[in-house]
Amino acid sequence: MQGNIKKTVPEPTLKRLPAYLHYLQKAREEGVLNISAPAISKVLNCDPTQVVKDISFTGAKGKPRLGYNTYELIHAIESFLGFHRTSEAFLVGAGNLGSALMSYQYLKSFGLKIVAAFDIDPEKIGQQKGKINVLHIDKLQDLAVRLKIQIGILTTPVEVAQEVADKMVKCGIKAIWNLTPLNLSLPEHIIIQNTSMYSNVVVLLKKLHDLEKHNNNP
Amino acid sequence: MQGNIKKTVPEPTLKRLPAYLHYLQKAREEGVLNISAPAISKVLNCDPTQVVKDISFTGAKGKPRLGYNTYELIHAIESFLGFHRTSEAFLVGAGNLGSALMSYQYLKSFGLKIVAAFDIDPEKIGQQKGKINVLHIDKLQDLAVRLKIQIGILTTPVEVAQEVADKMVKCGIKAIWNLTPLNLSLPEHIIIQNTSMYSNVVVLLKKLHDLEKHNNNP
Repeated sequence: MQGNIKKTVPEPTLKRLPAYLHYLQKAREEGVLNISAPAISKVLNCDPTQVVKDISFTGAKGKPRLGYNTYELIHAIESFLGFHRTSEAFLVGAGNLGSALMSYQYLKSFGLKIVAAFDIDPEKIGQQKGKINVLHIDKLQDLAVRLKIQIGILTTPVEVAQEVADKMVKCGIKAIWNLTPLNLSLPEHIIIQNTSMYSNVVVLLKKLHDLEKHNNNP
Repeated sequence: MQGNIKKTVPEPTLKRLPAYLHYLQKAREEGVLNISAPAISKVLNCDPTQVVKDISFTGAKGKPRLGYNTYELIHAIESFLGFHRTSEAFLVGAGNLGSALMSYQYLKSFGLKIVAAFDIDPEKIGQQKGKINVLHIDKLQDLAVRLKIQIGILTTPVEVAQEVADKMVKCGIKAIWNLTPLNLSLPEHIIIQNTSMYSNVVVLLKKLHDLEKHNNNP
């Protein structure tokens, strides 16, 4: 039953829960013992009904008038999201974006730990960023199998992204966080999460330029 | 007419064009003079009809059998996306993610230049990351108005994101790249582009944990 509930959780809920958590942790630090859905919704600009619905997925229950116990709610969300477990990941492509993620310690608080990075550039190999070593891509397969790595972070140039993703799958990696703009073609059972940083920048700039054009020639 | 064409360009097209560009630049370096839509679609794992449709928005025209002239196509996409123009942006929140973006020189090739960063942490103020100075948030308004900054990059903690976004709007900023998980509430004419890095990580990990659970108790 528990399993079924968890499987049906919508992705937007999953994406909102970390924001609730972040706010709740702050509230806890400030000594807030109980917190209501409307209070959370106000800070996070969303509908209180949505907050109640989102939280219901975690199994946490509020009390009439009191709301949720802050400690219990934090614990429920953290357990639900699996933040207490740490999943180890390999990153391939130690360029600018890759290095940024390697230095981005915050990922650990969500349970994602980058344990090694890989590249083909001799200048990058042997370097360390955010305490993570950059190794030659030739070592990927052996290490991934030995360490039973399940997560691959893809920050390569777009033209080798597919090839590297295929390599990751061969190594037993089950989930790929794809930060390249490439639409990866992989076996169905592989979990792919796309985050193209710069495609967002392109859309933003395009909208801004169009707005400027419109304002100049209304 | 041109204005109309540009306004109707779908966001997925905008997000794919940089990938085409990236591949075309590589092809140009390798001396490829003409390139066909099927060739592009093969490398980028998408439908050739889609490629033709996407490219049509830029005004570039292919020739039967020859395809597109690589140089012309690159120029058309770059002009269309406005990559030749550089837009200046202010970043607020010089924490891990903010610093990562400040060091991420690649943004410049898309026409986005971070000219200054702001924070309230005395330890961060006065520092330099990726040649960008971190200044006290109190200087935001004055500088934004003087430099006519139109783009704000929001990398603050979630609980101050709304307040900072409001400040940005007050300074005349017209487009906000929101990297916090907060759903910002801003006047309608403000362009908001959301990229929540870690909400993607949360979704990825959740899917992986659910898969593991399913495999252990099928």
